[in-house]
Amino acid sequence: MAIKNAIYAQSGGVTAVINASACGVIQTARQHPDQIGKVYAAQNGIIGALEEKLIDTSLESDADIAALMHTPSGAFGSCRYKLKDSGSEYQRLLEVFQAHDIGYFFYNGGGDSQDTANKIAIMSRQMNYPVTCIGIPKTVDNDLPFTDNCPGFGSVAKYVAISTMEAGFDVASMAASSTKVFILEVMGRHAGWIAAAGGLAAQNDSQPPHIILFPEITFDEQAFLAKVDESVKQHGYCVVVVSEGIRNKEGKFLSDAGLRDAFGHAQLGGVAPVIAQLVKSSLGYKYHWAVADYLQRAARHIASQVDVDQAYALGKAAVELALSGHNAIMPIVKREQDSPYRWRIDHVELKDVANQEKAMPADYIRADGMGITEACRRYLAPLIQGEAYPPYQNGLPKYVRLKNILVPSKL
Amino acid sequence: MAIKNAIYAQSGGVTAVINASACGVIQTARQHPDQIGKVYAAQNGIIGALEEKLIDTSLESDADIAALMHTPSGAFGSCRYKLKDSGSEYQRLLEVFQAHDIGYFFYNGGGDSQDTANKIAIMSRQMNYPVTCIGIPKTVDNDLPFTDNCPGFGSVAKYVAISTMEAGFDVASMAASSTKVFILEVMGRHAGWIAAAGGLAAQNDSQPPHIILFPEITFDEQAFLAKVDESVKQHGYCVVVVSEGIRNKEGKFLSDAGLRDAFGHAQLGGVAPVIAQLVKSSLGYKYHWAVADYLQRAARHIASQVDVDQAYALGKAAVELALSGHNAIMPIVKREQDSPYRWRIDHVELKDVANQEKAMPADYIRADGMGITEACRRYLAPLIQGEAYPPYQNGLPKYVRLKNILVPSKL
Repeated sequence: MAIKNAIYAQSGGVTAVINASACGVIQTARQHPDQIGKVYAAQNGIIGALEEKLIDTSLESDADIAALMHTPSGAFGSCRYKLKDSGSEYQRLLEVFQAHDIGYFFYNGGGDSQDTANKIAIMSRQMNYPVTCIGIPKTVDNDLPFTDNCPGFGSVAKYVAISTMEAGFDVASMAASSTKVFILEVMGRHAGWIAAAGGLAAQNDSQPPHIILFPEITFDEQAFLAKVDESVKQHGYCVVVVSEGIRNKEGKFLSDAGLRDAFGHAQLGGVAPVIAQLVKSSLGYKYHWAVADYLQRAARHIASQVDVDQAYALGKAAVELALSGHNAIMPIVKREQDSPYRWRIDHVELKDVANQEKAMPADYIRADGMGITEACRRYLAPLIQGEAYPPYQNGLPKYVRLKNILVPSKL
Repeated sequence: MAIKNAIYAQSGGVTAVINASACGVIQTARQHPDQIGKVYAAQNGIIGALEEKLIDTSLESDADIAALMHTPSGAFGSCRYKLKDSGSEYQRLLEVFQAHDIGYFFYNGGGDSQDTANKIAIMSRQMNYPVTCIGIPKTVDNDLPFTDNCPGFGSVAKYVAISTMEAGFDVASMAASSTKVFILEVMGRHAGWIAAAGGLAAQNDSQPPHIILFPEITFDEQAFLAKVDESVKQHGYCVVVVSEGIRNKEGKFLSDAGLRDAFGHAQLGGVAPVIAQLVKSSLGYKYHWAVADYLQRAARHIASQVDVDQAYALGKAAVELALSGHNAIMPIVKREQDSPYRWRIDHVELKDVANQEKAMPADYIRADGMGITEACRRYLAPLIQGEAYPPYQNGLPKYVRLKNILVPSKL
């Protein structure tokens, strides 16, 4: 078998552990110099591949590649870009692949990316330049099918659960005479997985969060306010975890349902202040709110060990599966047991993954629509296990910045 | 010397390490049963003392008291309440003290609390029931005089520095095609200490944060926008850390300078969305923003070891100083050397502490008003050293909830 080069690309929103998958790919490829020549990384995702901006990862030291294990964000850059279906972009991509003697393409992303990887596999065969295309799952939204979960999600889940717990302790301390309602806004525009993770902070019904607002459930103002009031009266305070994606019964996002600045411009983003204002004007309770935004998906300092392990294992498996002759597939995590959690790597066909979204099962949401069920807890709990602490220097995590040197263009 | 009981009270906004001071007080008192009988903790701060709601800490196990070292928030509750100067509340307090045979009062809080502790010391002598009153410093705002820093601040500083660094990595990954400006809002209504700590994330001028907005500096819209634009053009993106307390040239907080909900109500809180909107409407850059709010002061999961050590040492010293005959004083941290950081415990008279605020020195702010100087870095850097990780169970920190059993009332 001829030695071929590989391209690895990161796609979509970055996570605390996508670089751990990159580490798995590159370290494993380095163990097979008889089959894989160089691993190039597309600069800023697939756009870099189209523009022939390829980073030569062979110029990075073993130590720096190892440090990807504990470095959040996308070390080579990422983008949200879907190749146009017309085919000319696919053609361009394959010209770049051919110019750089690429035999393997590893695409680390969500549903769209898996679809793209599949199409490249098909088109490369049609164009008589077959490239082995392997998808590597990644999304904080946890919305890919087949895989037990998506790398990136477990660490966001851990961050949100811990933050909810810590803020809950804080509010409980002072609720008798101060803030009674605390609202934490988390990511998840279409699915409530991340908001649900906040529920792990509570070990029983009296503990925060007392309310979780899911994008799957139409926001019912009266039911929400009644629950806030009940919680304050019963526990002295109320902690709310709200998904950025909740909508009112007209189907509008609450986050852009009416805020205006002094000039009358719509104030974009932030459902937490909207909810807070509602609580204040309807119930009169003193509130505080937080919006975690990027902090939650970048929080490598408190990443889940399970998440890091799985991210690495999926990157490693992607290379091993490619070398054993698989094509147009995506390695997945297969859950074997909830408690103690046992998992293994399996794989599925890209054609089956593409453009499918995994919704949160209805039985994961409590009957009142404002909390999680035991089934949900059984699913989520294993994903936040273990603390994968990064090394520190001078009180700060020692994250790596790679050299990211581009290969000379050939086209 | 007769055995007397002690009251310990937490005051004002809670922190990640105020319970470490409580631990220092209680553990040290337990070592001196010949001098200190029971340590009572005021429920919900000084209000609990006024209402004769005293928690008997002797009913808490040694293990639970030890767990205060790693538990954020105020384990006995806290409040923001300043005793009325008229004297009747002081009188009531001393009646409660007398009823419960209190000889020692340890008050863990900010400037107002130190003033109160001092007044109680004076008044108790006047009323012929002398109580030894010792203040223990605490504020995330870092605004107490004499002490090198205030317990609670170092951990917020660490959280803000790490969060800024992590979000900076995230934004850098995707800035070529996505978010170019990220804004993190942090606490500090009157002083920029916490915002300044964000500056520790940068090891050189090209690294984030590129801009810090301090409450000490009047917000200059044009200068800010010019700097954002320059940063995006030079580095590809711009990370901003903004204090909640910044004001415009009319002296108004930007956080309530004009946002209205659909009903025309003022939208309270949140300077980050205001700044973000300004960037969007003036420069057109895609933005994201986060508001850390309570998450920053409750983040015991990534507390500074130096901060935890000092919080404990100050609580311990408070008891030891009381037992060695001191009164109306506050133990402080004295810095002996910047690097490697060396500190020791000293103490000052409460009358000198009361109602003084430590402002951030002018030479800690860069000439352009939007960053920190080397002098600031030398001061801040030691305070975030070391990671005081709490123990974990099932992927979550194992924070303690005390029994908090009240002593029967006597009045």
